Amino acid sequence: MPAEVPHTSRKPRLLDIAQVSGVSTATVSRVLNGKPGVGEEVRTAVIAALDMLGYKRPAALLPKTSGLIGVIVPELNNPIFPAFAQGLEQRLSHRGYTALLCTQSPGGTTEDDSIQVLLGQGVSGLILVSGLHADSSADPGRYGDLRARGLPLAFINGYAPGVDGFFASTDDAAGVDASVRHLITMGHRDIALLIGPDRFAPAQAKIAAFRVALAEQLGVKDARPHIFRTLYTLEGGKEAAKAMVSSGHTALICGSDLMALGAIQGVRSLGLDVPRDVSVVGYDDSPLIAFVDPPLTTVHQPVGAICEAVVLALLGEIDGTPSPRLDLSFRPELIVRSSTGPVPTS
Amino acid sequence: MPAEVPHTSRKPRLLDIAQVSGVSTATVSRVLNGKPGVGEEVRTAVIAALDMLGYKRPAALLPKTSGLIGVIVPELNNPIFPAFAQGLEQRLSHRGYTALLCTQSPGGTTEDDSIQVLLGQGVSGLILVSGLHADSSADPGRYGDLRARGLPLAFINGYAPGVDGFFASTDDAAGVDASVRHLITMGHRDIALLIGPDRFAPAQAKIAAFRVALAEQLGVKDARPHIFRTLYTLEGGKEAAKAMVSSGHTALICGSDLMALGAIQGVRSLGLDVPRDVSVVGYDDSPLIAFVDPPLTTVHQPVGAICEAVVLALLGEIDGTPSPRLDLSFRPELIVRSSTGPVPTS
Repeated sequence: MPAEVPHTSRKPRLLDIAQVSGVSTATVSRVLNGKPGVGEEVRTAVIAALDMLGYKRPAALLPKTSGLIGVIVPELNNPIFPAFAQGLEQRLSHRGYTALLCTQSPGGTTEDDSIQVLLGQGVSGLILVSGLHADSSADPGRYGDLRARGLPLAFINGYAPGVDGFFASTDDAAGVDASVRHLITMGHRDIALLIGPDRFAPAQAKIAAFRVALAEQLGVKDARPHIFRTLYTLEGGKEAAKAMVSSGHTALICGSDLMALGAIQGVRSLGLDVPRDVSVVGYDDSPLIAFVDPPLTTVHQPVGAICEAVVLALLGEIDGTPSPRLDLSFRPELIVRSSTGPVPTS
Repeated sequence: MPAEVPHTSRKPRLLDIAQVSGVSTATVSRVLNGKPGVGEEVRTAVIAALDMLGYKRPAALLPKTSGLIGVIVPELNNPIFPAFAQGLEQRLSHRGYTALLCTQSPGGTTEDDSIQVLLGQGVSGLILVSGLHADSSADPGRYGDLRARGLPLAFINGYAPGVDGFFASTDDAAGVDASVRHLITMGHRDIALLIGPDRFAPAQAKIAAFRVALAEQLGVKDARPHIFRTLYTLEGGKEAAKAMVSSGHTALICGSDLMALGAIQGVRSLGLDVPRDVSVVGYDDSPLIAFVDPPLTTVHQPVGAICEAVVLALLGEIDGTPSPRLDLSFRPELIVRSSTGPVPTS
């Protein structure tokens, strides 16, 4: 017999809200009536439950906007970018800020365009995710101009030396190192790295770590034949996988999950199986990636922790506490699922 | 031997650009030098290739911003919303407009907040995706105030009668009807609908279409025991699936792909297999959903066509040509993959 969430009644039902928010009905009542003595976290949980159940918030609970924060992502097709955007928006809005989000697409708006637009909108700070700060061929001078205006800046994934801002990145080297170790444990010796354009700092970090890991752990002196540079796309991963498997590799470490999905297609197009014949490791641990076939072994980017650190640093700076000028490194975790297995015996 | 995309040279190489954009080197040269006689589509393809290969655009090719368009999505966790956001941004930016995107999260910024913020930013028009216009319990008066200011409005997926704007929606009824027909063809008679809160127009349309389909095609007089209302989440889908399979249903039509992934988990948690024991149909055909296990049979929302229509209508209105005041309906397609199969014989 189907249970139903009671959406038809428009009057908030304390019991439902208590159930969804995980607090007592008495606490729900205190929050709804704006009574004191309720912590911020509990208050947020109750408002979130109201929203989820579709009830109107009491006027006193409407958030007050302290200001606007510009958030720029390079695109939304790779699921890791919506994850960062949503993680930042959520944390900003819970602290009273509104995120103005700009995305880009090839041939359209550029990062510089987006920055100009957001500046024109009077944002109090700017967060860039995988932007030109990560592109070694781009001029970091663009950010100096922003700092000269006193605009607090925070950057995710990528480091531009000399730029006066807060940086937070996933430790790419640690991710690649963990991937190589995992594959060696499974008996693999012919390991390839499939990576995007190497003008980007994260790609450079992954390539460097891959070289070190191959040299130290397998005694490989020249890693070049084991590195394939392509685009961070399904198609890029597919072509790269076909080439590297044809040249005798049994394990492929990919620069992104999207590329890894393409690599699995590439392996299959050769009549081979993942992981029986070839192991594939992704990077990002994007939402839904655990549901793919086979469930992807991948490096989990700590999106939540990075968003939290960046929002705290940026809002602190807006409130007058300069954030530390360093590239905060977040250790990723290798999530072993089913796209990696023992090296084939042949 | 690994091929490499030549990113190191910063000077555009005509051949690479021609290859990626699919036009001749002569045409690439014409575009780069701003010569006339090149169509807008070709020009865009060449600029896109420049961007993808990481070359700087010649100054003459930098887009000029005609104005800002506010785009509001309810969240970015369900992959259909980033797909709409990216589709809108791309089409707006190719026509010289910049998209300012706002997303929401439970307990944080609301749609009304976002609208106020975007109004304050002087947007030339507003596009709402699955917003309160789709919520029958919300007051559509909020949009009347916007129209009184002369702001052009466009709405995706949901219809609010009396609101003066352009509406475009996927034809939910057609999607559900196609799903039911597909399952009946496979021998299923015990078909359930797993759906989100029924205050939303798309949910109402799906429920109505499901009732009609069951009555007309299976002679079911009271569809209520076959409808499970829950939340549009993985967890919602999982719980609903467990309940509906336990009550004897062999096929589950879900209101979203996310819900369908949860439903597959729910079926498996009962020790059953999809599609051997239970068939599952999704809704949206989100990016990457073809890669899940098993590849999901689902209703494809024509995101590109809807975005194109909405952008054309909104920009036309900004330029002085009022768009038609109707709810343009886009016929979805049922994509049959591997999560549906013949009814089990037992």
